This record gives sequence, structure tokens and C-alpha cells, in this order.
Amino acid sequence: MTIALVVEGSGFTAQSRDEVRYFEHSLFLIDDHGMIQSVIEPGDERYTVEKNQAQERGVYRVIPEGSYLLPGFIDLHVHAPQWAQDGTGLDEPLEVWLGKYTFPTESKFADESFAHLVYGDLVNRMLSTGTTTASYYATVHRKGSLVLAEEAERLGQRALVGKVVMDSPEANPDYYRDASAAAAIEETERFINEVAALNEHSVQGIYPVITPRFIPSCTDEALQGLGELAARYQSIAYIQTHCSESDWEHGYAYERYGRSDTHMLHKFGLFTRRSILAHSVYPSEEDMRMFAETGAVAVHCPLSNAFFAGAVAPIHRYLNAGMHVALGSDISGGYNPDLYGAIRQAVISSRMLQTGVNRDLTAGERGVADSALTLNNAFYLATAGGGESLDLPIGRLEAGYAWDAQVIDTTFPSARLPIFDTSEPDSDIFQKILNLAVPENIRTVWVQGREVINK
Amino acid sequence: MTIALVVEGSGFTAQSRDEVRYFEHSLFLIDDHGMIQSVIEPGDERYTVEKNQAQERGVYRVIPEGSYLLPGFIDLHVHAPQWAQDGTGLDEPLEVWLGKYTFPTESKFADESFAHLVYGDLVNRMLSTGTTTASYYATVHRKGSLVLAEEAERLGQRALVGKVVMDSPEANPDYYRDASAAAAIEETERFINEVAALNEHSVQGIYPVITPRFIPSCTDEALQGLGELAARYQSIAYIQTHCSESDWEHGYAYERYGRSDTHMLHKFGLFTRRSILAHSVYPSEEDMRMFAETGAVAVHCPLSNAFFAGAVAPIHRYLNAGMHVALGSDISGGYNPDLYGAIRQAVISSRMLQTGVNRDLTAGERGVADSALTLNNAFYLATAGGGESLDLPIGRLEAGYAWDAQVIDTTFPSARLPIFDTSEPDSDIFQKILNLAVPENIRTVWVQGREVINK
Ligand SMILES: [Zn+2]
Ligand SMILES: [Zn+2]
Repeated sequence: MTIALVVEGSGFTAQSRDEVRYFEHSLFLIDDHGMIQSVIEPGDERYTVEKNQAQERGVYRVIPEGSYLLPGFIDLHVHAPQWAQDGTGLDEPLEVWLGKYTFPTESKFADESFAHLVYGDLVNRMLSTGTTTASYYATVHRKGSLVLAEEAERLGQRALVGKVVMDSPEANPDYYRDASAAAAIEETERFINEVAALNEHSVQGIYPVITPRFIPSCTDEALQGLGELAARYQSIAYIQTHCSESDWEHGYAYERYGRSDTHMLHKFGLFTRRSILAHSVYPSEEDMRMFAETGAVAVHCPLSNAFFAGAVAPIHRYLNAGMHVALGSDISGGYNPDLYGAIRQAVISSRMLQTGVNRDLTAGERGVADSALTLNNAFYLATAGGGESLDLPIGRLEAGYAWDAQVIDTTFPSARLPIFDTSEPDSDIFQKILNLAVPENIRTVWVQGREVINK
Repeated sequence: MTIALVVEGSGFTAQSRDEVRYFEHSLFLIDDHGMIQSVIEPGDERYTVEKNQAQERGVYRVIPEGSYLLPGFIDLHVHAPQWAQDGTGLDEPLEVWLGKYTFPTESKFADESFAHLVYGDLVNRMLSTGTTTASYYATVHRKGSLVLAEEAERLGQRALVGKVVMDSPEANPDYYRDASAAAAIEETERFINEVAALNEHSVQGIYPVITPRFIPSCTDEALQGLGELAARYQSIAYIQTHCSESDWEHGYAYERYGRSDTHMLHKFGLFTRRSILAHSVYPSEEDMRMFAETGAVAVHCPLSNAFFAGAVAPIHRYLNAGMHVALGSDISGGYNPDLYGAIRQAVISSRMLQTGVNRDLTAGERGVADSALTLNNAFYLATAGGGESLDLPIGRLEAGYAWDAQVIDTTFPSARLPIFDTSEPDSDIFQKILNLAVPENIRTVWVQGREVINK
């Protein structure tokens, strides 16, 4: 394996759920498949040899003082077409938001040139804010969804992409749904094969995702058929859907089937180690055990949840139950395309769960003890936790992982972070980066060894 | 009065608590004192005459298509020295945060050159994110506090600046407090006069603020003396302090005096039309009436409150009770120096108060009805509401108001807002700006007619 890039730099990577490791002037040797082959620390006898060799070969890059490396972020819930309406309509209740904003917007993606425009803009925006891997809902249109996969491939983002299935004539508007369950299944299968073909010439990985919008949008026939596809394509495709997002959605499965969302998805073959379950705010203890046993991931979308979920997902409990948990922006239920926002809001929302919100209750009865997430916890969810949940070697700056990395310049003139003391502890610099960085601070982003952003 | 600047542009200004007015290609005639003398709409017969005249005189500026004018934002609670520690320590409980981070940081501002460095950086950062008026706590040091007033004056920000009083030997560390109540009062009076002198050559207004840190930090003697100063200097000085921020603080006044924070501040002469009361999360109905009767302003700091208040201030109730309410960043209890962040978090926190946070309660018993703030409400608090609370002609783009304005470029290449449809309604563009703008989108900022930021 040839070393294609050697990066010397300082930075931060998650060691565990609770601990972040600071590294200083480490030398990352990255092979021509974009994998970190080894990491050499100063003091190691190979350090100077490798550095000199890389300089001679013209493959050496040094991250300047005041700039720091972080792993690229992993955003596991994004409705890509909703980027066109991002930030709007959130003063409306969910049903107005869906009917007046979301379905009309998504229906426009029958037009592939519009899809090209919006998807290219979104992928580029996410890359430039440090998101190197994303799991996307596209729309019901197979061709439009393929445009998203192509844009991610071309721009260099690792992407999981789903053609949305929503076939129920009762639950969906006539102008925006699958023609039938059979058509939905057939189009999904075709989409899986098209994305798999696209992935053959992708460096970073573009994965098809079986994507029933959520149980209420789908007929049993569609859910059943998608479950069969999930079994047939289990080595290629992921699965994503919404799970127990709101009181209404959580209650819906009980009304229709007498069982929980989690249970029914499992029954349909849609709840596996490859499943990405957006929101998952209301799973019961039994549902939580099913998460832990199958290894499916709950994707926490704290900003969106503030608008549409009606409660804060108890992430600490999920982690203690052995569940995989990752973070999601949930564009456009959550408007912030920047996962720094999700990290911050995850901490904020967890603090509000911990203390409670209603001042008219006593402090003791207001909140839920042991709910607060630390910034380290949230960083873990956005990086290593996301990678583990997908069973991909991403989310850590360590040997054996893909070189998905972002460089944060804390000294960038128009967005200088407030670091006035040269002896500031590393942990404080880390916290300032996570809490205060704006997109201008992110100067370089790599995915799988390829430099995709260089401002 | 000479017209010194004529700006033609489209944009948004708060009409009321609930309504935002969109204006299109309005012509703002700004006099040489930085006041909007008149606003002329297209179609008015004077429009072309005034525009041509301004062009001939070289004082005409046009805001390009895709860029929008907003009033400058008003941030009424900022601990300026804490900018040096901004973003750190928030995983710690309040007493650790104060003892390990805050007091050591603030004590460094005995060094005027350090004060100069940090304050200049903060004022510049706030101006560049659109905050044209701020109310600052400095530190106990009179000279260091004056440095902050001087930096704001020099850089062109309208500022209210307080030398902090914290004289209680029991409540404060020996290395960081006033020498005595008498010294605190004397230094405060001297500071008021020094700032008033500075203000004589300020264009935009630099105001002294009587600033007891909060009741727990001060002796009765100090509070009494500051109340007397407040009466003596009522035409010059504002008053600011923390009021009922947390369960602990709200309970403290009851323990010490058997009465509420609000009541005791009033008794000491510190609760008037000129008072700026940070947080105010726990005032009773009676306290709320005192707010409404005196006209003192409650400064809502939603980000900081998520970390330290233990509940969400019920802003809708406050507005319905006739209280003045404004927004604050509360740097560094709230780390975001950008008031766009406070606007967003005010909406988010209000939604979480409305629905509740604890999923283990039923939806009905979880939240507090009628709590949600709209984006329009939060924009009002950050602009017109802040201006009214200070009784200053700021916060609106209307005749008779100061020309405090920011230009948001929605098409700026590295931070383009997702506007793909040229027929997008104005209200959607407004929401995209408030929810999605990053500092890069803010290209020009004026305070009192003076261009203080031009990127
Ligand atoms: Zn979603
Ligand atoms: Zn404060």
C-alpha cells in the first residue's frame, strides 16, 4: 500500500463516550485508499524519517499552530429536498408544515435539474461545515434520488441515500406518493442496484438505503416487500425510517397494530443491525432492549425534536441500555445544516431535560435526574458513535480508520476564537471549538483521503 | 439638518410583537446625527428627486438584490470579560463554574492592556454579527471598566457599561471584590462621571450603568448606596443586575429578607424604569406587576438559562402582563456572541416549555400551554422591544429612529441561503435569514449612521 498523504497536526478525537483524546503534532500516514495506515507520535524513532520522506515525495502537509484536526462529522438524518424550504414554516403545526410546505417542496424533485441544483448546494454546504458522512432521505422519485447519490459521489461526500417510499393513498396526497406498493418495491429495488453500480467507481462509499418514510405513510404490502428487499440486499443496503418520533406517531402503531413502532418494524424485517431509526423519542424499555439486541441506531435530532417531538429523547438512558446512538440535523425539521448545531443543541436539550422547564413546579419535581449530556458525549455521538452504528471505519482519527477530517482554524481573522492565553488547557480549546466555531473557521475537509474543501 | 446618507434597500422591521413589516426599495434619508429623517416609498413623488439628489451629492447607497436590511440587534446582558473564557466550563455546576473559571478570569482585568485586548475583540465580534447596542457588565475594576466604554466608543457600538459591584466579604473571594461598600459606591460614582464625560464626544451613546452583580454578592450598605446613586444620576445612568435567575437565587432573597429579589431591589431604589434585570425566570405574579408598573425590563437569556436557570422564563406570560422584555446573550453563561443564536434559542426553548420535555409524563401534563414564541416575537424582542425597554429611538427602521442597521447578503458564495425559487414569499426569506444566517452573511453594519463594519 502506497502512502499518498502525510499530515502532521494537533487535534481531538473521541476516545470513548466520555473521553476525548488530545494529540499533538501527530503524523498521520494515509494510504492511497484514503485509510489511515498508521499514526506516529513525536518521540517515536520513525517520526523524523517518515516526515522527511513525505516532504521529499511532496505528500507532506502540516496543520499550522492555532489550527486543529477533528474527525469529520456524521449526520444520520437529513431530508435533502427539504433544503429548499429550510428554516421556514416552523411556526406552523406539523400537519400544516407537511401539507403546506414539505409535500409541495418534495414533489418538485420530479424535475431532475431542480434536484441537481438543490442537492449539489446542500452537499457542498454540508461538506464545508465538516459533515463528511450523511444519511439522506431523497424523495419518492427514483431518478431524482439518484441525482442526490451522484452529487454526493461527485462532490466527495460519503453518503447513504434512500428513495422514499410512501404508498398509502389515504395518508399521502395524490400528487406526491408511490403509484402502488408494487411500484414502490420495484422502484426501490431498481434504485438499490443503480446506487450499487454507482458505488463501484466511488472512492468514499455511496450506499443505497431502503426508506419507508414512516409506518403511517406505507401500506403493509409495501412494508412487507421492503423488508424482503432488506433481507435480500443486506450486504449492500441500509434501512432508514422514522421511529416513535412524537406522541402521535408512537401512538399510531398501537392503533393500527396494537404494538409499538419498534416491534412492527422488526416484524416487517426493517429493524436490523443496518437500521437507522430517526428520532426514537418514545421507545419503551422493551423497545430499547430490541435496539440494543439488534444493534439498530437511534438518531437523535434535538433541534427538530424541539419543534415536533413533544419531548427530549433520553439519550443517557439509551446509552446506558447499550443502544447505538448517533446525531442528525433532520433538515428541515431541524434547520441547521451544520452538525456543530446538533452537538450544541443535544447538550442544551439534555440540560433542559435534567432540570425541567416549568418554573411552576418545584425544582425536585421539574426535571429528570441523570439526563445531562456533556460536550464530550455529544462529540462522541457526532463522530465515533455514528461510525460504530454504521459499522464503518469512520469517526476517529486513528490507524485503520478512513481519513475523514476537518481543520478548524481558531485564528481565522473574521472569526477568531477567544483564546487570549497561550497556556490555555487543551480541553478548553476543544470546548471553545465545539461551542463557538462558525463555518468560516473550517478551512479544509477531507473524505477518504480526498481533499473536498479547501477554502 | 443635512442629509448625510441615503440608503435604498429592501428588508424587514418589527411592526409589533407579532407582525414584521417587509419593505421594498425604500429610501432612507439619514441626517448628519445618524437619525432616519424620513423614509420614502417607491411611487412617492419625492422618491426620484431625492434619489437623484443623493446620487449627485455622492451620499447614495443601494443595497443589492438578494441583500436585505434589518435593524441592528440589541443585546441587553453581556459579561464582557467572560469573553476570554467563552464556551468553556459549562459541563460544571454553577459554583465550580464561578470559582474555577469566572472569578479568576474576571480578576485578570485589573490589567488594562489585557482588558483592551479582550474588550476590543468582543466589541468587534459583536458588531460584525449585527449587534449594534449592548449592555455590558465589566468587572469590579473601575479603570478596566472604563477601557470597555472607550473601546465601544472607538469602535462605534452603542453601549451601556457597568463597573461591577460585589463587596460582600462572605460571598466573594478576597482576590476579587470591592474593598468595602463605601469604596464600591465611590468608585461607581466616579465611573458614572467618567463615562458621562466620555459620552460627550460619542456619536452613538455610551451610558454608565449602576451594576450590583446580584443581591447575594452585595452588602445592604452597598445596595443602599447604589440606590441613592441611581436616584441622583437617573437622567444619566441605567441600572442592571441579575434578578431571580435560578431557584437558588430566587430563594436567596427570601432567606435573607423574607421578600423576593424584585421587591428588595425596588426597596433599595434599584428597580426603576431604567433597570435592566437579567434572566428574571422566577418572578411571582406580584413581582410581574411590579415590572409592568415600573417599566423595568426582563432580559431573556435562553441559552444561559438552559445551563444555569433550571427552567424556561415564561416570556409569553411576561408580555401579556405588560412587561418590557428584551434578549441577552449572557456571555459566557450563554456562549453565543451572536444574537441570532439568542433569537433561535428563545423560540426553541419556548417550544420545549410549551410541549414539556419528559416523555414519561402524558402529553397533557408535560408542558405549559400558550408558551410558544414565534420567530416574529423573538425578532421583536431583539430589536424594537429592546429599544422600547431602554426608551431609546433604536430597534426599528423608521423615521425618528437611529440608523442602526445590518445588511444580510443571502447570496454570499460561501454561505448562500437556500433560496431557489425567485417567487419565494417575503415571510419565508425573513425566516430563512433569522434561522440560517451565519456571520459571513452579514456584510455591512451601521450604528447611528456610521458604517462600523464593511466586510
Ligand atoms: Zn425526518
Ligand atoms: Zn449574567
